[in-house]
Amino acid sequence: MPFVNIRITNEGATAEQKQELIQGVTDLLQRVLNKNPATTFVIIDEVETDNWGIGGQNVTTLRQRAAAAKS
Amino acid sequence: MPFVNIRITNEGATAEQKQELIQGVTDLLQRVLNKNPATTFVIIDEVETDNWGIGGQNVTTLRQRAAAAKS
Amino acid sequence: MPFVNIRITNEGATAEQKQELIQGVTDLLQRVLNKNPATTFVIIDEVETDNWGIGGQNVTTLRQRAAAAKS
Amino acid sequence: MPFVNIRITNEGATAEQKQELIQGVTDLLQRVLNKNPATTFVIIDEVETDNWGIGGQNVTTLRQRAAAAKS
Amino acid sequence: MPFVNIRITNEGATAEQKQELIQGVTDLLQRVLNKNPATTFVIIDEVETDNWGIGGQNVTTLRQRAAAAKS
Amino acid sequence: MPFVNIRITNEGATAEQKQELIQGVTDLLQRVLNKNPATTFVIIDEVETDNWGIGGQNVTTLRQRAAAAKS
Repeated sequence: MPFVNIRITNEGATAEQKQELIQGVTDLLQRVLNKNPATTFVIIDEVETDNWGIGGQNVTTLRQRAAAAKS
Repeated sequence: MPFVNIRITNEGATAEQKQELIQGVTDLLQRVLNKNPATTFVIIDEVETDNWGIGGQNVTTLRQRAAAAKS
Repeated sequence: MPFVNIRITNEGATAEQKQELIQGVTDLLQRVLNKNPATTFVIIDEVETDNWGIGGQNVTTLRQRAAAAKS
Repeated sequence: MPFVNIRITNEGATAEQKQELIQGVTDLLQRVLNKNPATTFVIIDEVETDNWGIGGQNVTTLRQRAAAAKS
Repeated sequence: MPFVNIRITNEGATAEQKQELIQGVTDLLQRVLNKNPATTFVIIDEVETDNWGIGGQNVTTLRQRAAAAKS
Repeated sequence: MPFVNIRITNEGATAEQKQELIQGVTDLLQRVLNKNPATTFVIIDEVETDNWGIGGQNVTTLRQRAAAAKS
């Protein structure tokens, strides 16, 4: 009866992609630990880029810098 | 000083119902463990049905199948 | 299919008390939101008092101060 | 490689303030535990006041009472 | 830069199995959403069976019932 | 009434260091958002290095590689 929480930035993942994550992680738990899919929960949280930081910097700014570096 | 996080699908719980959950779980912790309500926190997260999976399938699809089975 | 995470300090809750919490919060979700108990998950985390802070102070110290104030 | 989740009520924190939290907590972990900022993640969740309870009461109501008491 | 939290009951998963989960979910996020493995975090929490409930009943009891039903 | 969850690997943080984190993050929330310390909760989770992955690899192995590279 595993519980999985996946947190990603809110940058356009489609319902199909999120369904792939749900199916994929449920399969993984069945394959590795023989966990029953019927009682495997997966919750995906999509987080605004202003609200996610890495290296002390929010992702909004990191994305802008990456875009500027490419242009 | 308990902390409780309740996660439900985003399917129309009213402010009154959410208040009942907050009050109910706070009372429960006081009754069972003598926890002080003044320092009991409750946070309710409402999750989109596309973002919640069970049995490898998102809840949006599960709800559609259940509705189809009824009709 | 709710998911509930209850966090309390690690101060001697018994298996019976934890079972009361599990049953109580599952009943609450059924009563208030008509949630199916069969797919209601509850996880209780017991946290060391050194690892829980309130008012900028860990609970170990808060408990010692409260005990000293009583004696 | 710390992971920090900050939960606050959704009451108008600006992107600049959230960036200050991200930077501040990342600095704190480097200063106290010598954690590498490059692998420090911070996620801020902003929670509706209807969905946050303290003392068995949602914050929407607590704010209204505080406002009424002032007027 | 995804963050994944996998919660399972504490029933003997080996370090090798946990490594398979870490690798598997990291690969999944790269395959489905093109997420960079270098900034994908996975944390596995192993929860005592007394502290996990489903259907209003802790897993310790559910396991005992299942074992009794088999014998 | 913020809630902060700090997750670090279980590699010997002392009670004093954890107290510094609790105090530091509580001060940060007061300074940046004027949050009341009396209702600021901080929980620190210390996670086994086998149970934390980054780049698809558990931290136990990452630490061994780093140690080998130094010797």
